[in-house]
Amino acid sequence: MADATEQNINFSFGLWTVGWTGQDQFGGASRPHLDPAESVRKLADLGAWGFTFHDDDVVPFGSDDATREQLLGEVKKAADETGLTIEMVTTNLFSHPVFKDGGLTSNDRGVRRYALRKVLRNVDLTASLGAKTFVMWGGREGTEYDGAKDLHSAHERYAEGLDLTAAYIKDQGYDIKIALEPKPNEPRGDIFLPTIGHALALIAQLEHGDIVGLNPETGHEQMAGLNYTHGLAQALWAGKLFHIDLNGQRSIKFDQDLVFGHGDLLSAFFTVDLIENGFPNGGPRYEGPRHFDYKPSRTENEVGVWDSAKANMETYSMLARKSAEYRADPEVQAAFKHSGVFELGESTLGAGESVADLLADRSAYEEFDVEAAAERDFGFVRLNQLALKHLIG
Amino acid sequence: MADATEQNINFSFGLWTVGWTGQDQFGGASRPHLDPAESVRKLADLGAWGFTFHDDDVVPFGSDDATREQLLGEVKKAADETGLTIEMVTTNLFSHPVFKDGGLTSNDRGVRRYALRKVLRNVDLTASLGAKTFVMWGGREGTEYDGAKDLHSAHERYAEGLDLTAAYIKDQGYDIKIALEPKPNEPRGDIFLPTIGHALALIAQLEHGDIVGLNPETGHEQMAGLNYTHGLAQALWAGKLFHIDLNGQRSIKFDQDLVFGHGDLLSAFFTVDLIENGFPNGGPRYEGPRHFDYKPSRTENEVGVWDSAKANMETYSMLARKSAEYRADPEVQAAFKHSGVFELGESTLGAGESVADLLADRSAYEEFDVEAAAERDFGFVRLNQLALKHLIG
Amino acid sequence: MADATEQNINFSFGLWTVGWTGQDQFGGASRPHLDPAESVRKLADLGAWGFTFHDDDVVPFGSDDATREQLLGEVKKAADETGLTIEMVTTNLFSHPVFKDGGLTSNDRGVRRYALRKVLRNVDLTASLGAKTFVMWGGREGTEYDGAKDLHSAHERYAEGLDLTAAYIKDQGYDIKIALEPKPNEPRGDIFLPTIGHALALIAQLEHGDIVGLNPETGHEQMAGLNYTHGLAQALWAGKLFHIDLNGQRSIKFDQDLVFGHGDLLSAFFTVDLIENGFPNGGPRYEGPRHFDYKPSRTENEVGVWDSAKANMETYSMLARKSAEYRADPEVQAAFKHSGVFELGESTLGAGESVADLLADRSAYEEFDVEAAAERDFGFVRLNQLALKHLIG
Amino acid sequence: MADATEQNINFSFGLWTVGWTGQDQFGGASRPHLDPAESVRKLADLGAWGFTFHDDDVVPFGSDDATREQLLGEVKKAADETGLTIEMVTTNLFSHPVFKDGGLTSNDRGVRRYALRKVLRNVDLTASLGAKTFVMWGGREGTEYDGAKDLHSAHERYAEGLDLTAAYIKDQGYDIKIALEPKPNEPRGDIFLPTIGHALALIAQLEHGDIVGLNPETGHEQMAGLNYTHGLAQALWAGKLFHIDLNGQRSIKFDQDLVFGHGDLLSAFFTVDLIENGFPNGGPRYEGPRHFDYKPSRTENEVGVWDSAKANMETYSMLARKSAEYRADPEVQAAFKHSGVFELGESTLGAGESVADLLADRSAYEEFDVEAAAERDFGFVRLNQLALKHLIG
Repeated sequence: MADATEQNINFSFGLWTVGWTGQDQFGGASRPHLDPAESVRKLADLGAWGFTFHDDDVVPFGSDDATREQLLGEVKKAADETGLTIEMVTTNLFSHPVFKDGGLTSNDRGVRRYALRKVLRNVDLTASLGAKTFVMWGGREGTEYDGAKDLHSAHERYAEGLDLTAAYIKDQGYDIKIALEPKPNEPRGDIFLPTIGHALALIAQLEHGDIVGLNPETGHEQMAGLNYTHGLAQALWAGKLFHIDLNGQRSIKFDQDLVFGHGDLLSAFFTVDLIENGFPNGGPRYEGPRHFDYKPSRTENEVGVWDSAKANMETYSMLARKSAEYRADPEVQAAFKHSGVFELGESTLGAGESVADLLADRSAYEEFDVEAAAERDFGFVRLNQLALKHLIG
Repeated sequence: MADATEQNINFSFGLWTVGWTGQDQFGGASRPHLDPAESVRKLADLGAWGFTFHDDDVVPFGSDDATREQLLGEVKKAADETGLTIEMVTTNLFSHPVFKDGGLTSNDRGVRRYALRKVLRNVDLTASLGAKTFVMWGGREGTEYDGAKDLHSAHERYAEGLDLTAAYIKDQGYDIKIALEPKPNEPRGDIFLPTIGHALALIAQLEHGDIVGLNPETGHEQMAGLNYTHGLAQALWAGKLFHIDLNGQRSIKFDQDLVFGHGDLLSAFFTVDLIENGFPNGGPRYEGPRHFDYKPSRTENEVGVWDSAKANMETYSMLARKSAEYRADPEVQAAFKHSGVFELGESTLGAGESVADLLADRSAYEEFDVEAAAERDFGFVRLNQLALKHLIG
Repeated sequence: MADATEQNINFSFGLWTVGWTGQDQFGGASRPHLDPAESVRKLADLGAWGFTFHDDDVVPFGSDDATREQLLGEVKKAADETGLTIEMVTTNLFSHPVFKDGGLTSNDRGVRRYALRKVLRNVDLTASLGAKTFVMWGGREGTEYDGAKDLHSAHERYAEGLDLTAAYIKDQGYDIKIALEPKPNEPRGDIFLPTIGHALALIAQLEHGDIVGLNPETGHEQMAGLNYTHGLAQALWAGKLFHIDLNGQRSIKFDQDLVFGHGDLLSAFFTVDLIENGFPNGGPRYEGPRHFDYKPSRTENEVGVWDSAKANMETYSMLARKSAEYRADPEVQAAFKHSGVFELGESTLGAGESVADLLADRSAYEEFDVEAAAERDFGFVRLNQLALKHLIG
Repeated sequence: MADATEQNINFSFGLWTVGWTGQDQFGGASRPHLDPAESVRKLADLGAWGFTFHDDDVVPFGSDDATREQLLGEVKKAADETGLTIEMVTTNLFSHPVFKDGGLTSNDRGVRRYALRKVLRNVDLTASLGAKTFVMWGGREGTEYDGAKDLHSAHERYAEGLDLTAAYIKDQGYDIKIALEPKPNEPRGDIFLPTIGHALALIAQLEHGDIVGLNPETGHEQMAGLNYTHGLAQALWAGKLFHIDLNGQRSIKFDQDLVFGHGDLLSAFFTVDLIENGFPNGGPRYEGPRHFDYKPSRTENEVGVWDSAKANMETYSMLARKSAEYRADPEVQAAFKHSGVFELGESTLGAGESVADLLADRSAYEEFDVEAAAERDFGFVRLNQLALKHLIG
């Protein structure tokens, strides 16, 4: 795990991030295609530790096997030469129109079978490259219209596809975990598994859910107005935070994929605080890479591409240092105590106390001074201001 | 289950709905307090089948035991006289300032113990009234500031409180199920268990989660921009749709609690279609009451209170009838077929087919005509237009 | 103006709507390019009255003059043959990367000059085709980052560009009005003139604002959580509703461009009610075409394209009929009266009453029975339920 | 105007801010009522420069004249003793149920007349106290249901009420300006004048609009997903930024009224940058007080009330200092130049250039190198990262 004090942080990037040419819903590319192997070298120069990609980022959809081998070989070679880790691989089940109604949950069974084959092929690739995480973003799994799918069957098919993939990983003896990436909408009107919660809930129903967890993206949760750090915490609590996608989003709108910290900065501070410093009362930690899934703005040319890649790491590092200082500040620790942050770590029943004991404890209810308790000052605003002062002080 | 054709639908109302006096964040009451027992009688007159309440709706917070018995007795008497079913009871852990930082997850352990006692007392009441569902809405469980709580401890405490309550229900031999009600925000900046998904995910981690399920509210999911019907479907798929709160919301804003159907009407149509007619390919059904959790607008006096109560049932009944006709229409059934709605019911692997078989099936990948599959017309717009024509035709 | 009773409604479509090939932010085209002239013929077959286009919809960006003449000629021929009216023309200042920082407000002055020339060229085209409305959607005018522009200069430049265009129209003696199309975001993080209000406010500062008005789009206002019908009303009140873009949107998210009515249906009902029946107390009316700016879902092939085009007109026509019945219903008229809808038409001061008179009127304040007035039942829920029953009854 | 360098900033507070007792939509007061005069003294101690209030903040609704005089006298005395400026007064047209359908646009004419009298009485009070700004927030002016009002009449009545008030101010010779405060929703489903833009647009139609401007609130614009700083800029451009309400909001949800900076921090930085440093290319400046309209969180007792008041000023001051450094940094100035920030200050037509000249300039269009221009690197991400580094560095 990264040590924020020494700032030795394992940053990684999707090749599709720096590789985005600027084509969007309303306009064409504003930058030329980048050679993936060149991007790997450039990321290494900038100080990244690893990288990730979709199959189609490196090998254009429909390429023959020779081309595939050659293009993958170039990327592997760049990884070997630079020492960068290929830490995650993912499958593109969204760009080609064959997936226009989804992959694993397409109403078309032929498409579902094809999608599953594409996924399994990529699992093999993941294993061959030594990557440990296999991300699945089901961006086209969903609907625009509530009647367009049998919603029960959709969950059945999603679970079937995930369980088959997980079973295959186990059968092959691969050391790979699956990480689902939730998103509420865009490109579909409503995407299945719209939030961290929905994905955790589905995983809990899987037969092979033990190797299936999450890859939550900052902006995707914020597109539903949800608190990303809260979501990470619930995923950690469930033992399911396998990977993260860091970026920036400004309020509820289309998926902006800004540089990490260029969205809700105070929220980004607390995200880094959780990742680098853990929960105040201890508990599970995130052990994976600090992975960025962002887009260099379409207004930038290649200079801006690399400036923006750097900005992600720089901002994260600054927040890591500041959050370490925040945690180490005795005034903050005292404020935690005042606010009851540590007190929440104590179980509500005492050690050995039963419900019957609680019911018999008149001090807990009949004699509890409700009005006095209601007057407690939690000092949350002051605590937040301490964080803000560490952040911008 | 309600038979939409005969329109014999088990409608129920929270007493706090018609009882809302109009006091809101920015202004005082616009209507006098309604006597709960009178409300029960009035609801019976309007054709409701049941009702529900928070402890504090009937018995003001802090009342002595004699007052409590008397007030509860009056409501029970009204239920007996009218034949209305008390189908659900819930606990108010949000109005009194002692709960200003939550009940089960308050940073103050004394408050948590007090809240738990209030919950357990209400479980006993629920059992004594013969109600089968115990709803828990943790409206004050949450934060405004990301640093205000140890987020891991918060989930620990939430789970502790729920498991203790569920264990108590089992120990007492009560025939009661717990139904959690998610909400993303308001009154807290970020509420824990913000969506159906997050609540399902937490339940999956409980020791006594078998008797814990959901009470999803239309507007609460829509406040996060999420599709309510999708959420109901995932809860049904997980076997956890124990109760529902129907109402209306217009886009992402404060909690409006409008009459059911006065928000997103097309979405309401598909919600009723799911509840009354089930999934097109079969599967689990919702068996509980059609419960309304709405607020008569503050602009209305008592006349408007009952007009609005009636409007909920009337709208639901109209949608039930229309959705039954929609399902029965041969053109709709043909459109389902064209769109692949039934095809999604077929498993992706064939009967007895293994992953190895799939990998060996060249027609699934190597020889799959991707371009042809990409051209398929799913006819989703036409299917949606058929629904719309049944709705407004 | 359209007569809703006889259902003789002047529907028009942007050629880019049915012509959208399905390419979006996350995937490639799912349908082939449609020949614009063929689209015109097909729209005529379906019963449309007119059509509209961006320069680049018909003539690919960068075409030489001969190609331009030929392609425009084909479309004009189709218009002549079918009798369809070319009612509006608009300029694409968003697709080509030269406009990546906007057209009229690009930080690059060369781009601004180029954009203005493209606009003026299109004004000439508009005049030559006999279209009366020139729409300007500044989709790339905006920022992702608050520091990226001098925001005062941006408004100066926007006003400069609009005033120059309007002055040119006057100088040339063209019978053309400009209609601005607001949008809050996408593709830019924040677009200038994000709502109907902001655009009206800018127009009020123009030198030649008399021929500049609005082209509000349903979904664009709803992307900011705003009430489209309220917005239309303010534009009408200001004498500035020159054109409309009707479509569907479901909550606050990316720009969905669904079929009209496939978003917020109850809101669509009231939009049509305003357009077709005017304000209950009279006042300005919208006199322009009923223009659709939607996208056939990417899941559809060409069959779905025309099904969806038809669905727009069909839904609008149904809503027009239903809203006419709603207005004609004596129970609705009585409910209007009860709710004070007509009373709002009376000025607050009486005829000839001065402020001094009001101040001297003790019945208005000192002797006004505040508590009695506070008890008035406005009956808004009942009135809305009447609308809903007309809509779905 | 405040000098950010010397940090001599004129901070003011609404008495209702620190005076909020914590009563909200879902719960009762968590703090006792504060004596207004005491609050004034406490604010003075904390370093505020001024304060503001609604009539009903100081004088409970319905008080007799003697009580009114006495209570106002106490507040004036506190102002005199502390030297604090009463810089703005506003009217409560939202708390009492008589205003449940609005004040100036209530469907009830008697209510409209009563509201207008309450407003005029408050104008006199404003003048007598020497305050220069009269804020009007029409929080109850709006609807839940689109059919509930004649929307044209609503704008007529709104304009009538504002014009009468403005005319009265002029007639009385008062040195007072009116500042409208937009808000999109809450407590009404849709409020009239939902954004800065809509309010500017209405003002432009007034007869006495010259003394009517805006009081935009941070969170209110953000509740519609709009950029507050962009809104301030348009108001400045229109010469209408008369007052501001600073606070914090996290995404699109209910009105949070957090401490300034505790919402979107990067946005707050740019807001302060605009207020303190003006536009990069010069232009109109905001000259009024730095006014906070926030709520101390309900979890806090009186300690937290004053901690939070202080936090507003502290955060603003830190941002003022940092934004001054940002502007003074030569690297930032160079980045402005690179990004074209200054270039946007140049008019699109040259000095003396006519449209005819532009049309004749082949370098502007026919010979303009579109592809080269499209490749320009605007460096917006880098510029934003410079801001972020000044903010948190």
